[in-house]
Amino acid sequence: MPKISEKGKVMPASPIRKLTPYAEKAKLQGKTVYHLNIGQPDIETPEIMLDAVKNIDFKVWSYTASEGTLTYRTKLAEYYNKLNYNITPEDIIVTAGGSEAIIFAMMSCLNPGDEVIIPEPFYANYNGFACECDVTVKPILSVIDNGFALPPIVEFEKLINEKTKAICICNPNNPTGYLYSRDEMQALKELALKYDLYIFSDEAYREFCYDGKAFISPMHLTGLAENVIVMDTVSKRYSACGARLGCLITKNKEVMATALKFAQARLSPGMVEQIAGTAAIDTPDSYFKEVNSMYTERRNTLVKALNKMQGVFCPNPGGAFYVVASLPIDDSDRFCQWMLEEFSFENQTVMMAPATGFYATEGAGKNEVRMAYVLNREDLNKAMICLEEALKIYPGRGRK
Amino acid sequence: MPKISEKGKVMPASPIRKLTPYAEKAKLQGKTVYHLNIGQPDIETPEIMLDAVKNIDFKVWSYTASEGTLTYRTKLAEYYNKLNYNITPEDIIVTAGGSEAIIFAMMSCLNPGDEVIIPEPFYANYNGFACECDVTVKPILSVIDNGFALPPIVEFEKLINEKTKAICICNPNNPTGYLYSRDEMQALKELALKYDLYIFSDEAYREFCYDGKAFISPMHLTGLAENVIVMDTVSKRYSACGARLGCLITKNKEVMATALKFAQARLSPGMVEQIAGTAAIDTPDSYFKEVNSMYTERRNTLVKALNKMQGVFCPNPGGAFYVVASLPIDDSDRFCQWMLEEFSFENQTVMMAPATGFYATEGAGKNEVRMAYVLNREDLNKAMICLEEALKIYPGRGRK
Repeated sequence: MPKISEKGKVMPASPIRKLTPYAEKAKLQGKTVYHLNIGQPDIETPEIMLDAVKNIDFKVWSYTASEGTLTYRTKLAEYYNKLNYNITPEDIIVTAGGSEAIIFAMMSCLNPGDEVIIPEPFYANYNGFACECDVTVKPILSVIDNGFALPPIVEFEKLINEKTKAICICNPNNPTGYLYSRDEMQALKELALKYDLYIFSDEAYREFCYDGKAFISPMHLTGLAENVIVMDTVSKRYSACGARLGCLITKNKEVMATALKFAQARLSPGMVEQIAGTAAIDTPDSYFKEVNSMYTERRNTLVKALNKMQGVFCPNPGGAFYVVASLPIDDSDRFCQWMLEEFSFENQTVMMAPATGFYATEGAGKNEVRMAYVLNREDLNKAMICLEEALKIYPGRGRK
Repeated sequence: MPKISEKGKVMPASPIRKLTPYAEKAKLQGKTVYHLNIGQPDIETPEIMLDAVKNIDFKVWSYTASEGTLTYRTKLAEYYNKLNYNITPEDIIVTAGGSEAIIFAMMSCLNPGDEVIIPEPFYANYNGFACECDVTVKPILSVIDNGFALPPIVEFEKLINEKTKAICICNPNNPTGYLYSRDEMQALKELALKYDLYIFSDEAYREFCYDGKAFISPMHLTGLAENVIVMDTVSKRYSACGARLGCLITKNKEVMATALKFAQARLSPGMVEQIAGTAAIDTPDSYFKEVNSMYTERRNTLVKALNKMQGVFCPNPGGAFYVVASLPIDDSDRFCQWMLEEFSFENQTVMMAPATGFYATEGAGKNEVRMAYVLNREDLNKAMICLEEALKIYPGRGRK
């Protein structure tokens, strides 16, 4: 029997899905499981987008240009230029979700063994993409005490060596919900220019900023055009995760020409998705207002409930739809599994993602969990009651 | 300005798209261009498949399981089991087109520097995927004289060394249209078992076999289950290239578990496509009969017209919808460009793919072109008249 690859052996399994078998078991036992573990919003996809799918009128479901249709890229440029990105359709390659944009960015910019610095906790699949591209992730610790703000620039500088090629940020952040300030972005810009680094900007949650706070993209900063690569997706913006429609944006012509070669090899992004994505750009502002006020309420509900619990701390994040909270527990992997396997309160339990999966540093996040507030307020409240009851009786409470 | 990656520099541009700017120029000059250069069929996608798209009735366009929905995989297994593949839904991972299945296969099975033997001429994007996965393609020459039959096994054995991990075939073949016989498949099986190699079987054109010839998959051969990885797509089968819906099939559990990790990193295949793909399995046999008889007629038209031309030879392929023909020309890249830039007959010309792009061996295919018979017979005939006239006056005629 032929052997599998070494890369296949070290490729990390998705930490978010690790507990799925236990959740299935819990359901088989008749428990109601509140899913706070994944970022699959319950929000409805804009009708305008689904209608575009229903109204397709072609006869041949054909390839599009590898970089995406000009129609869609033109419409996308409109969307981004309303946000002052100052781009043209030629600065965009349409991708299969944000995932493919991340892979194209890494493959186009980094050599095997090159390093990308990423504040941790970070989106766990960066590890997988880095593995695919033979890139080394250098984590830099952000801490819960200040709500997971950008670590001090001096800490970045300590990590920078001749192999360092990029800094990757997710803003607003998954898993912490932290929204980087203009000052923090400015500091990153100066760092990138000083050391000639790429900034990979994962902006999947751009539309979800709360409390009137402004979203600042590196695309908004002057003098940084050659360094910035935006990795975006419609997944969260329009609650269309299953469309697998994203894009890579850069004004760096050489990176664009290179990424296009990777795009050409896989021929085309999805045609129907691009039709839907084109329609989605006309989603009325009222949709986002409604969604944002709903998420704000949910966040307030969750954060308030968490901070009322003995020994629990949860910062109040400025964006996305996640929180990372610290709990009085010995081991979040064990706790989250215990919640599914052993615990129930009024025949209900909660599924959360152990924060350990979002840290590259061994042992970090052991008393933290990530929760996605993708449920309605009533269910969130029930989930919080469950969690509070669970923490009262969890055998590993308080231990380290 | 930060540098792009070395991989980005060596990543091959798509040879099929190299001539696109010249085709655009020809059209601007008012010429009619017959596109025989790409495998985008003009055949209509089955109504049952497009109707499934039009009839979607969900509210949230959500992620599916990373391996694809159980519904779709169950239906796919039905399709394959009608063809005697003897598989279960657990042997399938749904992918973003055949392209992603090829990447998953290479990443799961081959280490950087490992070698995959591929009979050439071969599907040009294998080069790109091999580059992405740091895999070395070892080409083995198949020749036009015998219609591009499988090269003698002894020639394969000459190439096999400790780095050889796989043989990749495309059957029926793109670009040659050659359909491997049962004897040839049996010979490959013995080779794979003798040297413990994977067989990557690209079966994108499975449904297009002519003259009553049988399609033989390595899945049909006993004792080979652990070695075979099928890479498939709905692109050609249902003329749905833009759906980006494919799959990887293997009964090798270790490869399946490994490929699943790559699938999990990118979260999900497209949801609407899987709904459409599920419906497509019920495409009536009459659709395929009609399509196949249309392609058979077109092939006959093309092959007959080509072989009537002075100095031209075109084998009569058993499958797919391509032919590779040898022409009395000095350089197919130059000739194909000349056809677009310099030549016209009654204000018409033909776009073809220089066969050089399908060979890894430097200099091979210089007097060969690939033509896709994806136009109706009338247009094919007009294109052949153009080609005949062009060969009469091409300045590089007959030179080597």
